[in-house]
Amino acid sequence: MSQATAIAAALRELERMFGERVATGEAVCRQHAHTLTWLPAQPPDGVVWPETTDEVAAIVTVAGQHGVPLIPFGAGTSLEGHVNAPLGGISVDLSRMARVVCVSPADLDCTVEAGVTRAMLNAHLRDTGLFFPVDPGAADATLGGMAATRASGTTTVRYGTMRDNVISLKAVMADGSVMTTGGRARKSSAGYDLTRLLVGSEGTLGIITELTLKLHALPARVIATAAPFSSIAGACEATIEAGASGIALQRIELLDTAMIRAVNAHAKLELQDTPHLFVEIAGGAASVEETLAAFQEIALSNGALRFDWAEERHAKRRLWQARHDAYPAVGTTWPGKTTVVSDVAVPLSALAQCVTETVADIEASRLTAPIVGHVGDGNFHVIPVFDCADANEVAAVRAFLDRLVRRALSLGGTCTGEHGIGQGKAGYLVEELGEPAMAAMRAIKGALDPRGLLNPGKILTARRR
Amino acid sequence: MSQATAIAAALRELERMFGERVATGEAVCRQHAHTLTWLPAQPPDGVVWPETTDEVAAIVTVAGQHGVPLIPFGAGTSLEGHVNAPLGGISVDLSRMARVVCVSPADLDCTVEAGVTRAMLNAHLRDTGLFFPVDPGAADATLGGMAATRASGTTTVRYGTMRDNVISLKAVMADGSVMTTGGRARKSSAGYDLTRLLVGSEGTLGIITELTLKLHALPARVIATAAPFSSIAGACEATIEAGASGIALQRIELLDTAMIRAVNAHAKLELQDTPHLFVEIAGGAASVEETLAAFQEIALSNGALRFDWAEERHAKRRLWQARHDAYPAVGTTWPGKTTVVSDVAVPLSALAQCVTETVADIEASRLTAPIVGHVGDGNFHVIPVFDCADANEVAAVRAFLDRLVRRALSLGGTCTGEHGIGQGKAGYLVEELGEPAMAAMRAIKGALDPRGLLNPGKILTARRR
Repeated sequence: MSQATAIAAALRELERMFGERVATGEAVCRQHAHTLTWLPAQPPDGVVWPETTDEVAAIVTVAGQHGVPLIPFGAGTSLEGHVNAPLGGISVDLSRMARVVCVSPADLDCTVEAGVTRAMLNAHLRDTGLFFPVDPGAADATLGGMAATRASGTTTVRYGTMRDNVISLKAVMADGSVMTTGGRARKSSAGYDLTRLLVGSEGTLGIITELTLKLHALPARVIATAAPFSSIAGACEATIEAGASGIALQRIELLDTAMIRAVNAHAKLELQDTPHLFVEIAGGAASVEETLAAFQEIALSNGALRFDWAEERHAKRRLWQARHDAYPAVGTTWPGKTTVVSDVAVPLSALAQCVTETVADIEASRLTAPIVGHVGDGNFHVIPVFDCADANEVAAVRAFLDRLVRRALSLGGTCTGEHGIGQGKAGYLVEELGEPAMAAMRAIKGALDPRGLLNPGKILTARRR
Repeated sequence: MSQATAIAAALRELERMFGERVATGEAVCRQHAHTLTWLPAQPPDGVVWPETTDEVAAIVTVAGQHGVPLIPFGAGTSLEGHVNAPLGGISVDLSRMARVVCVSPADLDCTVEAGVTRAMLNAHLRDTGLFFPVDPGAADATLGGMAATRASGTTTVRYGTMRDNVISLKAVMADGSVMTTGGRARKSSAGYDLTRLLVGSEGTLGIITELTLKLHALPARVIATAAPFSSIAGACEATIEAGASGIALQRIELLDTAMIRAVNAHAKLELQDTPHLFVEIAGGAASVEETLAAFQEIALSNGALRFDWAEERHAKRRLWQARHDAYPAVGTTWPGKTTVVSDVAVPLSALAQCVTETVADIEASRLTAPIVGHVGDGNFHVIPVFDCADANEVAAVRAFLDRLVRRALSLGGTCTGEHGIGQGKAGYLVEELGEPAMAAMRAIKGALDPRGLLNPGKILTARRR
């Protein structure tokens, strides 16, 4: 039986089971392969919307019977082609699994279905004094998708990534079984860390359907600043020094001059035309003052020109909204152009070198490529802006992004700080980790999904059957 | 070829390669199977002391050629029979791999060989202003062993477990290849989280030979207290409330009345004859005051009788030494008796219920079993003291420990907060996680160690060949 026949048969069976919750129209399939990048879209052959874990298990069973690939889909905001269907197959859209199952304020935890988004959860938590901290910025991703891609963001310097904030999870495995990776205890040394194995597995080992997440108490006091620096190297050095000193910043974000210009135009701000650190400090009333003083001293000794502190709610929100709107700001500043968002991370001590060499590379390559980053983690994004119809420009951007990854790797860093491997970074994984790690990943994939039906072609190359 | 012949042949080959760094004497073999528990010792047939990762790889290759089990050995301080050799085989003692490879203060990280102990590392860091926080208490375990068992301890409430503090690692896999799981970037979303898969794998998936670890800046100010409570329930409720409030305690440890008596006798202290919380608060000068005030208010409203604050170095050390000496204190208080240390962890909100029901169970069972615990994590240890020659007493202790685990599981907790599964808790794993998780673990073990030669019989039941 051909793959097309098998997929058609599986879709017919799913239509019998799920009725109007199965779709095969071109528009809806195309929408489920929207990559947000220059990776070509590879739409699935159909989409199904399960509403319970048992329904996901039933879908996996049907797909297994017909040998059909499944591509888990959250909000479709990933950046490395995670939702593409290179071998065809069926997109499993989890957006209808959007219930907050329970919140336990005494345990600072909650259990949610995979389709709950970060914003939905924080809206649900309003008035509890608690919040979920992982904040990838612009995208209102689903928590299942964030776990699957090991997402992080602006508050990671304080609260960690999804790796650190998922206590346990439920996932449907390739054989249709429903696996629970643990209970609600904050720590456990009971067996292999299946939670962390699923977090970052990009839907290739199981379909995450439910998550128990850490919550955090809202800090008593939060202040924010935008600090202009005389040089981008100085802003990086201040970040390195703050990191090494151990002072607890809530966020510390770098925006280079090109990004400041875009943000000023988009958000109607009047920030000085120079690199900035956007910093947030949170804690008790007194500890905030202590941290602020320590940070100011470090920043001034590294070329900070001044500090515009915002404590009032509206001013803080305006500042961080401008930061979170960095990507749309790039789009509106250079209309009609294509943008690609790439990211790398390096050990913090290598941040200044990696950023300044990257800025020099951008200038030497005559590219437009604003930089914005979660520099407290040694992680930054570069957003080349180019004409995708101009083959020379496209080639120059590709070569630049390749040099960016190699620069990060040569400094002991990673080819992707928080966007995942997907399709876009799959070529760099062996370079970063070496063949024994690749062999281990392939062995694990083969053991847990022997027929390669779960999100094939992501992280590891798909085996064509 | 029989197993005994195979082992003898492997040992001969290792002797040719390692000379006097191979031993087969009964005393040395028995010492490498010292379980620190009531689990019967199952000594290996020989011990080898590699000095480099390449030597470990050579040992794994020889063992593979002869089909001989290998049992990685750090300091032998694990508590669930991890170093036993139920199928025979060779103990790989990593204590000569004890070099601190490098320390990077700017990155707050270091790279060490697996045989470096926690105390050795912190001695090495003296005068840098940095420290490695994971502190299992009494045992000066090796960092490789701590990673392999996902160890934690008194400071986990603030700094996390080994899971959170290993950035990446190097391990020799069953095929003799040397796997590196990552670079030195603080975060990465590059592929499956092989670091976390090895952390807690108890030597069953690979032999950890090198670790890159997070370090932390020593806090500017540290204060400690021993606060007596009118009831153990009150001490637990204070812990729950402090946890839910999000105040940042450095350590919060519960000692019940029986443990206070043992500690008083052993350390010549005069603590009041009632349950205590030992608490440490650390941070900037002002933030410590803020946290202290918040904790005091919570503790007083839950029956704290007073606070004996210790800020002076000697007083603090005396207090925490008494806490860390809890296990020897039990030994000296009841000389000639056998002690078994077991641990469970529950969601914090269930701590008071779990502890008070356990205390009631101890009384109803007429057992002596002091309690001491890292209660900020919902984790506590119970240390039954009994006459191992008295079959009735042994049976009563076994039944009590079984009820302890079931109580923790029924409250959403785990059968082991920090001691690992090893042999001792292997029977509870399926009850805690369910069959799909067990199937995933067996599949991963089968994929990475198809012949079952790495530490067989730990976590999963050994397949006899």
